[in-house]
Amino acid sequence: MIVLFTDFGLLGPYTGQVKAVLARDAPGVPVIDLFADAPAQNPRAAAYLLAAYAAWFPARSVFLAVVDPGVGSSRAALAASADGRWYVGPDNGLFEPVLRRASEAQLWEIAWRPEALSASFHGRDLFAPAAALIARGDAPHWHKRPVESARRPLWPDDLAEIVYVDRFGNAVTGLRAAVLPQDARLGAGGRAIARARTFSDVPAGAAFWYENANGLAEIAVNLGRADATLGLGIGSAIAVEG
Amino acid sequence: MIVLFTDFGLLGPYTGQVKAVLARDAPGVPVIDLFADAPAQNPRAAAYLLAAYAAWFPARSVFLAVVDPGVGSSRAALAASADGRWYVGPDNGLFEPVLRRASEAQLWEIAWRPEALSASFHGRDLFAPAAALIARGDAPHWHKRPVESARRPLWPDDLAEIVYVDRFGNAVTGLRAAVLPQDARLGAGGRAIARARTFSDVPAGAAFWYENANGLAEIAVNLGRADATLGLGIGSAIAVEG
Amino acid sequence: MIVLFTDFGLLGPYTGQVKAVLARDAPGVPVIDLFADAPAQNPRAAAYLLAAYAAWFPARSVFLAVVDPGVGSSRAALAASADGRWYVGPDNGLFEPVLRRASEAQLWEIAWRPEALSASFHGRDLFAPAAALIARGDAPHWHKRPVESARRPLWPDDLAEIVYVDRFGNAVTGLRAAVLPQDARLGAGGRAIARARTFSDVPAGAAFWYENANGLAEIAVNLGRADATLGLGIGSAIAVEG
Repeated sequence: MIVLFTDFGLLGPYTGQVKAVLARDAPGVPVIDLFADAPAQNPRAAAYLLAAYAAWFPARSVFLAVVDPGVGSSRAALAASADGRWYVGPDNGLFEPVLRRASEAQLWEIAWRPEALSASFHGRDLFAPAAALIARGDAPHWHKRPVESARRPLWPDDLAEIVYVDRFGNAVTGLRAAVLPQDARLGAGGRAIARARTFSDVPAGAAFWYENANGLAEIAVNLGRADATLGLGIGSAIAVEG
Repeated sequence: MIVLFTDFGLLGPYTGQVKAVLARDAPGVPVIDLFADAPAQNPRAAAYLLAAYAAWFPARSVFLAVVDPGVGSSRAALAASADGRWYVGPDNGLFEPVLRRASEAQLWEIAWRPEALSASFHGRDLFAPAAALIARGDAPHWHKRPVESARRPLWPDDLAEIVYVDRFGNAVTGLRAAVLPQDARLGAGGRAIARARTFSDVPAGAAFWYENANGLAEIAVNLGRADATLGLGIGSAIAVEG
Repeated sequence: MIVLFTDFGLLGPYTGQVKAVLARDAPGVPVIDLFADAPAQNPRAAAYLLAAYAAWFPARSVFLAVVDPGVGSSRAALAASADGRWYVGPDNGLFEPVLRRASEAQLWEIAWRPEALSASFHGRDLFAPAAALIARGDAPHWHKRPVESARRPLWPDDLAEIVYVDRFGNAVTGLRAAVLPQDARLGAGGRAIARARTFSDVPAGAAFWYENANGLAEIAVNLGRADATLGLGIGSAIAVEG
């Protein structure tokens, strides 16, 4: 299974051309749109989102992960394996939390370049063929690098920021619920927000946080929009209160 | 064929994870995105939309229908067969018009629960595996219930409200065109709107209603937006004038 | 491979029903969403977008191209082959630049009509079955027409307008970069914009134009939105300054 994690959107031409390459190079392999609206041009926020959602997928899934403000520059192209899953994308920190949390990991620099490489669309021209090669089961024949060379050791273990706002206005943090005290309150939008199990456990209009279906702490308003109610967007800082 | 009818959106993580489950549990079965923007948290409006659009699909289609403001509460999970099509989703009225219009129907309560059931994402954890089981052709082995137990007898046969606004601004009602008098006018936005066959039959800028390609009465403005012109949104009341 | 180029959107019911027809009539053929947000009701702008993006796809790709403000009127339905690729859609100029640039082309009028033809959704009822027939490899048995009969000879070779704005705010013109002088400036939003290779070659916030990954001249702002910065939208005129 190839899983797309990008900021490309779905309506326009980007995801479609990536899928055309995958259909050509890895025919018959299911392709899943996980996020097409990952935090745009923000690999740090995207990294914590990716790590949480990737953990739900089975071994041998291949993540084609492209949040790449440096496309066309000299940043390297990477492939990584971590705990049985594969990751392909730019060398900009996007795989930091994945690598940090993995019990085993390996890293390759994709030195291969296609005959026709556009300056602006490496997702189609470089990363998609590389992901297809891995999904076909071919051993990557690229240049092996120490995992440490792609790390961002100064980044935190969990990110106390909003990393995603869904279409219902729920605001997903980069904090794993499992690392928070059971009775922690999250400071957001000038308020201290208590934990609940899920939407139907609080009154209509009430703000709460809960462990979402992929293990992240998520701030929500039952039958309302947390983003509008609390003034939250990607990058908003969250305080963890005892 | 598995047909998705949800309010999950496509960009974010929800539809992708549902499709990952379907690819795992029902490999090779085509999955169709029918609506990912069904009326959010509004099972009543969604129900009339679903019934009209489902009727176009062939027998043995499996509808995974999730508009589920009560997720995480004690509402039941249902599977229904009606006129040869299958429906899986929450017990909140979403299947009322389907069941009411069916010449034969059966109902099951899905008592099965997966080992890992999140509080907020039954679409992925519960309904998708159940839909995949039916799509594989396995007989559902759940608890059979009388069809009447899932009914909403006080709901109307057709819903005189806007149940969907498409990206062009056309406003779809919950009224089947076939039940309306041929010369009926629809009262909406303070105006009485006459019927036309289709867009190209009226002048640019003119409002009209017509039988859309799935049998519902739909209010439109030729080369314009009916929602903005007439002030219509999901839930706007429509009057039928003789 | 069947490639969808429409203004139908993805969330609502249109693309899903088209794909249901393709799954029924051309099972196993990959279906790619290229554009679901082609310039709405603007076949002229859409035509230049289609020609540029289609050229990237391999021979035998079948483009189901529907931007069709005249649906339900007497406009004809066409199938064309051009340089090995196939095109199915309305006779409204949508294939003009494709045909003009082709070294060989053939044209058919699709006189066939399905038993159930809605007035408003020929994409589902007429064009999708026709595209599926071609994708299956069946010879089209329709009425052959001279290619000239579908031409728009007064349209320009390249269109000096914005034909698409992507989700990042980049504004795509209908001008092929290869026909512009290397040092051309593009006049847009009251400014004369110089060429760059790609985003990372200019400072943050700077406007530039570049040859995008499909050969069109595209106006962008590094780490910003060109549409908002320069006031550009579909249809905005662009001046080419030697």
